[in-house]
Amino acid sequence: MTEPQFYKRPSGLTVAEIATLVKAEPGPGARLDRRITNIAPIDLAGPFDLTFFDNSKFSDALAVTHAGVCLIGERFADCAPSHLTVLRMRDPYRAFVAVAGALFPDALRPSSLFEAAGISAGATVHPTARLENGVTIDPGAVIGPRAEIGAGTVIAPNAVIGPDVRIGRNCSIGASATILYALIGDRVVLHAGCCIGQDGFGYVPGPKGQDKIPQLGRVIIQDDVEIGANSTIDRGGTRDTVIGEGTKIDNSVHIAHNCTIGRHCILAGQVGLSGSVTLKDFAMLGGQVGVSDHFTIGARARVAAKSGVISNVPAGESWGGYPAIPVREWLRNSVIVRKLAEQSRGGKKDDSGESA
Amino acid sequence: MTEPQFYKRPSGLTVAEIATLVKAEPGPGARLDRRITNIAPIDLAGPFDLTFFDNSKFSDALAVTHAGVCLIGERFADCAPSHLTVLRMRDPYRAFVAVAGALFPDALRPSSLFEAAGISAGATVHPTARLENGVTIDPGAVIGPRAEIGAGTVIAPNAVIGPDVRIGRNCSIGASATILYALIGDRVVLHAGCCIGQDGFGYVPGPKGQDKIPQLGRVIIQDDVEIGANSTIDRGGTRDTVIGEGTKIDNSVHIAHNCTIGRHCILAGQVGLSGSVTLKDFAMLGGQVGVSDHFTIGARARVAAKSGVISNVPAGESWGGYPAIPVREWLRNSVIVRKLAEQSRGGKKDDSGESA
Amino acid sequence: MTEPQFYKRPSGLTVAEIATLVKAEPGPGARLDRRITNIAPIDLAGPFDLTFFDNSKFSDALAVTHAGVCLIGERFADCAPSHLTVLRMRDPYRAFVAVAGALFPDALRPSSLFEAAGISAGATVHPTARLENGVTIDPGAVIGPRAEIGAGTVIAPNAVIGPDVRIGRNCSIGASATILYALIGDRVVLHAGCCIGQDGFGYVPGPKGQDKIPQLGRVIIQDDVEIGANSTIDRGGTRDTVIGEGTKIDNSVHIAHNCTIGRHCILAGQVGLSGSVTLKDFAMLGGQVGVSDHFTIGARARVAAKSGVISNVPAGESWGGYPAIPVREWLRNSVIVRKLAEQSRGGKKDDSGESA
Repeated sequence: MTEPQFYKRPSGLTVAEIATLVKAEPGPGARLDRRITNIAPIDLAGPFDLTFFDNSKFSDALAVTHAGVCLIGERFADCAPSHLTVLRMRDPYRAFVAVAGALFPDALRPSSLFEAAGISAGATVHPTARLENGVTIDPGAVIGPRAEIGAGTVIAPNAVIGPDVRIGRNCSIGASATILYALIGDRVVLHAGCCIGQDGFGYVPGPKGQDKIPQLGRVIIQDDVEIGANSTIDRGGTRDTVIGEGTKIDNSVHIAHNCTIGRHCILAGQVGLSGSVTLKDFAMLGGQVGVSDHFTIGARARVAAKSGVISNVPAGESWGGYPAIPVREWLRNSVIVRKLAEQSRGGKKDDSGESA
Repeated sequence: MTEPQFYKRPSGLTVAEIATLVKAEPGPGARLDRRITNIAPIDLAGPFDLTFFDNSKFSDALAVTHAGVCLIGERFADCAPSHLTVLRMRDPYRAFVAVAGALFPDALRPSSLFEAAGISAGATVHPTARLENGVTIDPGAVIGPRAEIGAGTVIAPNAVIGPDVRIGRNCSIGASATILYALIGDRVVLHAGCCIGQDGFGYVPGPKGQDKIPQLGRVIIQDDVEIGANSTIDRGGTRDTVIGEGTKIDNSVHIAHNCTIGRHCILAGQVGLSGSVTLKDFAMLGGQVGVSDHFTIGARARVAAKSGVISNVPAGESWGGYPAIPVREWLRNSVIVRKLAEQSRGGKKDDSGESA
Repeated sequence: MTEPQFYKRPSGLTVAEIATLVKAEPGPGARLDRRITNIAPIDLAGPFDLTFFDNSKFSDALAVTHAGVCLIGERFADCAPSHLTVLRMRDPYRAFVAVAGALFPDALRPSSLFEAAGISAGATVHPTARLENGVTIDPGAVIGPRAEIGAGTVIAPNAVIGPDVRIGRNCSIGASATILYALIGDRVVLHAGCCIGQDGFGYVPGPKGQDKIPQLGRVIIQDDVEIGANSTIDRGGTRDTVIGEGTKIDNSVHIAHNCTIGRHCILAGQVGLSGSVTLKDFAMLGGQVGVSDHFTIGARARVAAKSGVISNVPAGESWGGYPAIPVREWLRNSVIVRKLAEQSRGGKKDDSGESA
């Protein structure tokens, strides 16, 4: 086997071009004409690679790196060895991300997995579906009746788009994703296996079991949303489920019917939102957080991973634990409880083996 | 873009027909001949919409609603403005659900995403599979050797039905769902991305790593079960995994091998059951609950969201926390622990900023 | 309906052959020429079934079993009824697993769901993909440009293999699984709906929202790994995400970018690993465990189900709770906290109904 090449080798940027792009000051002796074609962490970087340095923890690697150019925090600039070409700046990591995007523009949005264009053989497009020019439908994808898809959008293999769904321009819909009863904006990225728009989980307990509540709403996904693999978003019951502009959702997140997510929120992996939860703009939820139905997470509020929210969280605050409370209090209480428990066992530290 | 129409506009019901359907008493001045064609929440309802009122929190909306007819709790009937056509009854929400189902019968069970009938072009059906008349196979679905599918069942695009699987009548199998080693009853709904019948997670640790335990059981899904998107149910090891009649399972739930779920249970999103767990009839698990292997949740017992169950839960009780204990005790302890911790910090309330 | 036959009826093994296979001593009167063709739990076993006995809890079943042969722990051998053919050994469960594998070798790795060989009609294989002889591609599967697949590997229906992906020999890739940017070893089993290699969840908060960090790494899956249904593994950012040899991962597990999982680890259902987590060899994580980013779980360490790890876990230790601490201390503290809370309520036991 030869080594596979997953990313198109970029034509690259010179150090001078990179300096201009990130508005950085070249260090003394910087080789401005060197062409950079890849990125790498500092310990792995070679002579054609861009890297960055912003943490004294990696000083040893800085001393011996072979990187072609290193974006470096101003306060660390003097630590760089003299042979290393550096660009000095306030926020080298942010600059590194910007240059990486410029080197690998294709990496910002998944493209056709079949390197195809237009409607592939093996795709099934209903005759009443309307596709703008420049839509790519990979093999095995199924596009339902009256669906509309905007220019530049790529539908990966085996994705399923239901009747009447609208998808905007320059979107990327992942392999085997399913989209039903949804209106989707521009530049939206759904990763593989996402399920959007299925029935919400609504039943009324009756004498002979559960009676199903018809789910007659939709899912609205605004521009620039990204949703991770195997996440699920149910359509609304009588209202809509809404995901606001620029919000980013990780893998295996579950969003129940009638939730309203604001703009630029972050939901980490395996978060679960019960019905009718509201997140205000820029709210952030850590991994595996659960929020009980009808509660609101305020603007710019943060909830620590794995917390269970059973009340509203005020704007701007950080909460944690279950039931969730302000995060510092929660962590402090954890320590105090350990101490109280220790005292109550007679001050002896546990000597039972594993926990020693 | 025009507004898409996701739901077939129903022919509608008159107010008189609705009154008969839900056995309600029309209020004075009710316009019994008005035709109702949609449902809506009280703040959004227009003159052809059905709505309901059962919570004084929404009194302001009741005063100004334009709903065509409002199902209203008896104790609130006097609060309705005189121009509003109302139907009085004990349980208006349950009645609302019943009328919604009558107006939109198609919404109770997903139908063909390709609006097709019979076997679509682009589906692959093994020559030994046996399909009753009236089965719908959408494009891209794959039906394996000797599978049997009953009349009225719809298989959505790209679903995969393995060898020898039996599916009853009037079922709906979601897009890209996979069903292996399973016997499925009538009127079962599986949403998109469900994985049913794969190997249970069984290994014996050996000197050179983990030895796989062959998984030789099946999955039995009884009548009227509904299972949410991306949920996974493993087949049994030597016994079967069983999901009882009428049980409803939300999205991204994980049910391990050999579990026995009773009738009419409710499992909310992201619940996880370890191997050989038993749920008795009408048990209810909140979102993200985990149950450790071999324990039993009693009949009509409830477990609060996000709890971790590491013992049996007696019938009829409500438990919560981790390790789960009776729910009131758990919530009370949470409050007491906060107080004890506060005292132990010297009675000072945390003044460290975020948690103030 | 006739009863379906999901597993090929094996030709079977005689009791003598089984005794040789597991190096067991036949009990007095063992019928060594009896042919065994199936396995069963002791309460269900019939005259052609193998079963085992290793727990006095099931003594009643032992007394009346009709099993064809019973593998039995040495200390229990005298409890067996005289008519029962037994084989005595130290570890009957391990032996049972070994015989089950010998009787049903097909059950150790999923085979073609279409009982097909070669490239099925309805599969789409890019002309530049390279398949060794003896590869099976089921209907609806899509194999991308320059992908390479080794002999004996089975790709189930509707699975999607992205450009340049390499898959070794004798692997089984489940229905509707998606594999991107990945190198996969030999004898790897991925179950249905797995999503491997999509973008990691990386953003830099900017003034106008979240800026996406290009994800330029890969996923490396070593030999003999098994991954459950609907699990997701993100590719690395600048490094690779690595799953070590022989590691077993259950359903709906989420592994973020840059994680390094050692050899022969066990990750139970719904585990979630944040970015750059390290698991050393033979680490075991219970169901729904979450590990915060950049922490390390030491070799042979164990974390109890549903725990939240926000520190390193030393090799060989067992931890639990959230924040996770040594497991015995955590369980002991839970008990002490209940007692302290009880005292603080005035020593009265809760008599409020449910929790009585």
